[in-house]
Amino acid sequence: MNTSAFDYQEYYDYPDWNEVMGPTKPPLVVVLILIVLARQRNPSHRRGFTDLLSPANFLDQTQLKGVVLAVFAILFCKLSVVVLSPNPLPFVKDSTPTNREYWKILSLFYYPALYYPLLASATLRSQAGYALGSLLSWVHLGVLVWQTVDCPKTPQIYKYYALFASLPQIAGLAFLSIRYPLLLLKGRKATSSKETGTMETGDADEGLDCSYYRDYVKKILKKSNAKASPPGTSKPKLSKRLSDGLKGYIYTTEEVFRIPVLLAVAVVVSLIAIYQVALLLVTMVVPTLHIVRAGVDEDIAFLLAGFNIHLSDDRAEVVKIVVHYMWCVEVCYLSAMTLSCLVSLLMLMRSMVLHRSNLKAMYRGGVSSVYGHHEGARPSRPALVCWMGFTSFQAALVCVGMVVQTIVFFICLLVAVFLLIIPILHGQNLMLFHLLRSTWPYWVTLLLVLIIPHAAARFAFVKKDAGTRDLDNRSTLFLLTYLLFLVNILVGVLLGLWRIVVTSLYNIVHLGRADISLLNRTVEPFDPGYRWYMQYLRIEVCQSHPVMKAFWIQLVGQEKKQAKASSARRARRRWPLLLTLLNNPSLVGSRKHHQRPGGDGLPNGTFNLAAAVATETARKDADTAGAV
Amino acid sequence: MNTSAFDYQEYYDYPDWNEVMGPTKPPLVVVLILIVLARQRNPSHRRGFTDLLSPANFLDQTQLKGVVLAVFAILFCKLSVVVLSPNPLPFVKDSTPTNREYWKILSLFYYPALYYPLLASATLRSQAGYALGSLLSWVHLGVLVWQTVDCPKTPQIYKYYALFASLPQIAGLAFLSIRYPLLLLKGRKATSSKETGTMETGDADEGLDCSYYRDYVKKILKKSNAKASPPGTSKPKLSKRLSDGLKGYIYTTEEVFRIPVLLAVAVVVSLIAIYQVALLLVTMVVPTLHIVRAGVDEDIAFLLAGFNIHLSDDRAEVVKIVVHYMWCVEVCYLSAMTLSCLVSLLMLMRSMVLHRSNLKAMYRGGVSSVYGHHEGARPSRPALVCWMGFTSFQAALVCVGMVVQTIVFFICLLVAVFLLIIPILHGQNLMLFHLLRSTWPYWVTLLLVLIIPHAAARFAFVKKDAGTRDLDNRSTLFLLTYLLFLVNILVGVLLGLWRIVVTSLYNIVHLGRADISLLNRTVEPFDPGYRWYMQYLRIEVCQSHPVMKAFWIQLVGQEKKQAKASSARRARRRWPLLLTLLNNPSLVGSRKHHQRPGGDGLPNGTFNLAAAVATETARKDADTAGAV
Repeated sequence: MNTSAFDYQEYYDYPDWNEVMGPTKPPLVVVLILIVLARQRNPSHRRGFTDLLSPANFLDQTQLKGVVLAVFAILFCKLSVVVLSPNPLPFVKDSTPTNREYWKILSLFYYPALYYPLLASATLRSQAGYALGSLLSWVHLGVLVWQTVDCPKTPQIYKYYALFASLPQIAGLAFLSIRYPLLLLKGRKATSSKETGTMETGDADEGLDCSYYRDYVKKILKKSNAKASPPGTSKPKLSKRLSDGLKGYIYTTEEVFRIPVLLAVAVVVSLIAIYQVALLLVTMVVPTLHIVRAGVDEDIAFLLAGFNIHLSDDRAEVVKIVVHYMWCVEVCYLSAMTLSCLVSLLMLMRSMVLHRSNLKAMYRGGVSSVYGHHEGARPSRPALVCWMGFTSFQAALVCVGMVVQTIVFFICLLVAVFLLIIPILHGQNLMLFHLLRSTWPYWVTLLLVLIIPHAAARFAFVKKDAGTRDLDNRSTLFLLTYLLFLVNILVGVLLGLWRIVVTSLYNIVHLGRADISLLNRTVEPFDPGYRWYMQYLRIEVCQSHPVMKAFWIQLVGQEKKQAKASSARRARRRWPLLLTLLNNPSLVGSRKHHQRPGGDGLPNGTFNLAAAVATETARKDADTAGAV
Repeated sequence: MNTSAFDYQEYYDYPDWNEVMGPTKPPLVVVLILIVLARQRNPSHRRGFTDLLSPANFLDQTQLKGVVLAVFAILFCKLSVVVLSPNPLPFVKDSTPTNREYWKILSLFYYPALYYPLLASATLRSQAGYALGSLLSWVHLGVLVWQTVDCPKTPQIYKYYALFASLPQIAGLAFLSIRYPLLLLKGRKATSSKETGTMETGDADEGLDCSYYRDYVKKILKKSNAKASPPGTSKPKLSKRLSDGLKGYIYTTEEVFRIPVLLAVAVVVSLIAIYQVALLLVTMVVPTLHIVRAGVDEDIAFLLAGFNIHLSDDRAEVVKIVVHYMWCVEVCYLSAMTLSCLVSLLMLMRSMVLHRSNLKAMYRGGVSSVYGHHEGARPSRPALVCWMGFTSFQAALVCVGMVVQTIVFFICLLVAVFLLIIPILHGQNLMLFHLLRSTWPYWVTLLLVLIIPHAAARFAFVKKDAGTRDLDNRSTLFLLTYLLFLVNILVGVLLGLWRIVVTSLYNIVHLGRADISLLNRTVEPFDPGYRWYMQYLRIEVCQSHPVMKAFWIQLVGQEKKQAKASSARRARRRWPLLLTLLNNPSLVGSRKHHQRPGGDGLPNGTFNLAAAVATETARKDADTAGAV
């Protein structure tokens, strides 16, 4: 701890440290290989290229979610490198301060491109793609682990900062290094057992044949039988309400419900954001505090005397006291940081519970219960922009929230420790207690003013009679109201301060959550966080409604089997669709548009309701079906 | 401005200044006189004493509201004297710091008692009462004006502070000095014209015979014919919405609607609170700033050099610059104070509009539209306590809100002036602009990141077809979503900061308003201000429902005329009551209780529905009717 910052700089001055960071293969080459692979696989049409331009279908809930989550997590870990490192790009050495900004901005686009092949390898759903994915993840993991082992200490902020910051990245890459080979093995098995050429059905859980959507519909139909008791009949018990309240903060997976891809990404990235911010908060402050504490010597007594602070006659004791106080500050800081981590985690869990209930409510067509007012659920321009940026916004909000929480909690803890705990323990500087003692008549009066009306209301003013309550002794009530007017103003000032404390604390604690508005009921949409979330939900619900998809899958399956169905059967098939549309008016607009004959063929990944219901043209090519 | 504080102290050192403050008559004597008057007037029953124990019926909307408002306003002005003066009580000279607290607490109860006769004189509704009220208000006004003229300057805070602080008090007393003689004259005229002994109908606007309640019912019945267009059919124009929004902030009196007494008191007291807080904020800071500014001499250059601040080589110029900067600070402070006054006034107007709409909604039985959830409207213990303290709480909240607003606006203005305006005007210290210039690549990137998705969404991703909208080019959309992930986090951080600014500013501006909750929809009742307001409304609505009173008045009037009505007529008379109860389920509980025969005779001012509808016992004594 006594080593100065200069030694660190010299010690870790690796001149060729950045060279190691270089990627072993430029991403462009990998993408080209992937394109060739994709074309080889199915040269009849240009699906390969289209596939590769889309990293993953973020609107499909049957994706290889694990791969997407891992890649986003790895990408997010790179952000701290971009922001903090003087040379964010591995191939640029010793950037000057003038052009550093340009490199930093470039690196914000470089890293997504660098990790793009990792994501695109899964999109192909071919053996070759999985093999390439395995290879890539191994190489990335190998390079990162080798770097970390070779030079675990870096000159940035704190010697082990880079090591700790790259831990989630290593975990993500390790996950991919295992996941891709597993996918490869699974696919090989399926190929050898079925002896078919296509790979679409290689992973039983993924793709069109996934039973998720059908199961979801089955569950909804089952649930409607067991109705809950109508609300407002009787108040539940306190213990029941408490346990219900607690349950609202603990996220447990439900049998047949999948969180949408982007929402899952937002949650995972938020988790990593909590880790990274906590790491930054610790490494930026605690080592400095340690160094300062170790550097305290007897000169501090003279310094304090300059500010008229006299702690003790003995200089050694002054050093002891100052070191002790600095240790207290450190403890406060770490406690505040831990508290804000815990609060953020709790809020994240609560958010997930609310995400699910909001999504379910909107699937049921209950837009107004979520929004607070009725609004159509069609894709609009701002809604789409909010959908695109939602994951990033959620992560940024968590970061901002954690920093603000840590600062506020730190100040509160400092006040509590230095004005309450230390004075009580040492029995000196009891300023707060002296203040309370000198103003005790006021506190007693305030207490009396709070007790007297309550007691009077209980025993004199409210009359219980024949099961109902009415006012009694009105003249005395009015007299007391008048006489207590001036004293109540003092109570009111305290309540006003309490109002400030309550609202600030609530808003600070909930700052990282986008799923609730921090503003009053009437102006909720003016909260930017809440607005983004609502717009995001809108796109998500109108584009990936599981019930709609379930019916579509069923119909396409049936079409494959029997190309020409009788009109009676067709009518019967349309019945559930009608029911769905009736209960989800937000879908009607979408359907109307698709129903019109001769709609354009939509590109890869598009969900086309028209294909499902417009049985006028019996379509035999299963290409579109396979593409989803 | 160059005179030091010492001179002020000596100059205004009136040793017998407090003696003048003494009341000319102890309030107890006046109350005794009033009791004797009341007994003389109607010695058959003990109404006189009961009347005098109730300062006014705060639950009746046909009271002499002017007198009540004036007395509360006078009382509130005394609060600043109690809090700031070293000798708050006129009969205690030179209180020691030890027992000063006791005197201050005592004075919080002394002043309501001192002004009590002013209020009670109106309650009697007799010629003698009005005469005594006139006499008292003249004496109080005379003493106060004489004091103010005799020694306009006091040693407190600022020499003219006491003078300015007592202006609303003088206005209130002047109002009473005119109002009481007018009431006396009106009563005398009525007596001479009717030659009847009773005074109940002396004031045409007041008491039971008031047509307010009947007019209110008539208006409701008329209004139901002209129905508004159903909501949500079409969006109104922007200009229409803007003008509607503006109207929501401008309170205009409505023909047949009276704000309840306590709510009117709260509004008047809030107005005076704004004046008093503004006065305090100005007088506590501006004179000090003036003195400091006048005291700036060439030594300031040395002082600044000690802090390594070098403004100019010429010392006279340094003084000039410092004086100029201090003038800027003063301007900022006064602007912030003015802004907070304007905001408070605007919020008060908006509150009044909302009070009225809330009351109307609750009169219609729409509890859930106001509360957000359904809750019974019966008097409970906490609700009654909130009702008693509501006026005080509202006034205190306005005071706290104004202080917080002034501080926040002051800081914002200081930042704006010293970081934006002065640097631009003088062309130096352009720190903020240098910072912006050095980081311009980031800002351009952020701007591009905000523009690109919007443009892409407009031209590529959202497809308008056959009147509906759907997504297009999905793979590119997913690709852009992935590539912009890291940059969007930076946008997200800005949005997070924006969220903090928006929510803080909203809450600070609305801090003084109790009629809206500053918390999220789901936890609204945890806001103490909102909770008090809701509980207050609850009592107010269930105890002074105008429709209920209208029917009662009508029935009692009819009963007086025809003691024995036929049962058919009785049934017809009950019809409107039934209709009222049907539309106001909150009243049913109250009615059930009162309907049971043999209910206790309620004291003065009680509204007894039983007396109205239980026609089983034809009651001939109009005492209770006269008492309301």
